[in-house]
Amino acid sequence: MVDVWEVKERVIEDNDAESKKVQAYLSSRNVFMVNLMGSPGAGKTTTLLRIIENLKDSFRIGVMEADVDSKVDAETIAKTGVRTVQLHTGGSCHMDADMTLRGLNYLDAEGLDAVFLENIGNLVCPAEFDVGAAKKVMILSVPEGDDKPLKYPLMFKVSDCLLINKIDTAPVFDFDMDRLHEHVSALNPDMPVFPVSSKTGEGFEVFTDWLKKEILSWRKQNV
Amino acid sequence: MVDVWEVKERVIEDNDAESKKVQAYLSSRNVFMVNLMGSPGAGKTTTLLRIIENLKDSFRIGVMEADVDSKVDAETIAKTGVRTVQLHTGGSCHMDADMTLRGLNYLDAEGLDAVFLENIGNLVCPAEFDVGAAKKVMILSVPEGDDKPLKYPLMFKVSDCLLINKIDTAPVFDFDMDRLHEHVSALNPDMPVFPVSSKTGEGFEVFTDWLKKEILSWRKQNV
Repeated sequence: MVDVWEVKERVIEDNDAESKKVQAYLSSRNVFMVNLMGSPGAGKTTTLLRIIENLKDSFRIGVMEADVDSKVDAETIAKTGVRTVQLHTGGSCHMDADMTLRGLNYLDAEGLDAVFLENIGNLVCPAEFDVGAAKKVMILSVPEGDDKPLKYPLMFKVSDCLLINKIDTAPVFDFDMDRLHEHVSALNPDMPVFPVSSKTGEGFEVFTDWLKKEILSWRKQNV
Repeated sequence: MVDVWEVKERVIEDNDAESKKVQAYLSSRNVFMVNLMGSPGAGKTTTLLRIIENLKDSFRIGVMEADVDSKVDAETIAKTGVRTVQLHTGGSCHMDADMTLRGLNYLDAEGLDAVFLENIGNLVCPAEFDVGAAKKVMILSVPEGDDKPLKYPLMFKVSDCLLINKIDTAPVFDFDMDRLHEHVSALNPDMPVFPVSSKTGEGFEVFTDWLKKEILSWRKQNV
């Protein structure tokens, strides 16, 4: 077995400068933004539905659905009545800060309390491109396996919170929660981890209580 | 709901020219290469174990394991006794043709009949970067959902064969095989689709019989 090479191709250019513009846009409008990331099929959209259900009475919520193609997720979210836009990255495997700012302008975040960006399903590039969100929430689903922190460490390092989704399916998978916690602790020891099922709703109250506190605390500091 | 933009950022440069070099390398050595693609956790490595099990008596097999980080998959594969190299893309979310050629040189494909490249877990960029393989095999796993062709159409368009993995877990997911077939047919009507379980082995004989025929037919034409 041979380690073949290390290529550090950084095409992140001025993304960090752009992400400060996003932060300024959000801060001046007192809008808390979450960057929601995870693999294809991890359950990002169904998780958003649960978040909207639990938080819509406390906050005015907006959603930006990023996809390479299609608008199925935005249509699903729009049915809840929250302000929704579909963003097409046209081939790009992640959202960057400039795209996010344009998305926010289309959404018109004015008057909203919290905006959720559902990023492209991908564990690599979304971790590298900071889009200026107040919090990065990562979803890992049980069927993906407990070894993912070893293979996609940056995503686990940069996230502020980890949801372990689809815990209702644990009986049919060899997912070791202790081993997952070990791997995660090595990368990001203080990150809160919430086991949930976006299908049954299990665990969501604990998570959205945490999120609510984060939103209120951010808004208090932002004033 | 608003469609915000279409960005066609093509950083594929001379990848296609490089992929021809890969094809020449493989052709001159009579080595059939498979580019194995799928989401994180779709079951690429366990699928490879099943392929090796079924084909190792007929063909001399080599494996290139591409990962952003870690070498757990290469260690797993190396235990089967087949020639294995670990490739680290160092942050890149896909393999390109140049990386593949370097990987083949490290693997030393001379004397092998078939090489399997396990690409980075990602449904976006690996579809855009042709690495010169004779066949592109895509794995979609049941937990990811039947709507993935709508969201990642290019991957389904460019693939030569689709495995639907983890069919043993179908009872706990709302995966509609008919709907999946409809979506796939619209993008790639002639692509063979094999339902399998890399955990139980179900369906693998049919798939590896197909693969065996493809290898033999390619080698016959290549001479």
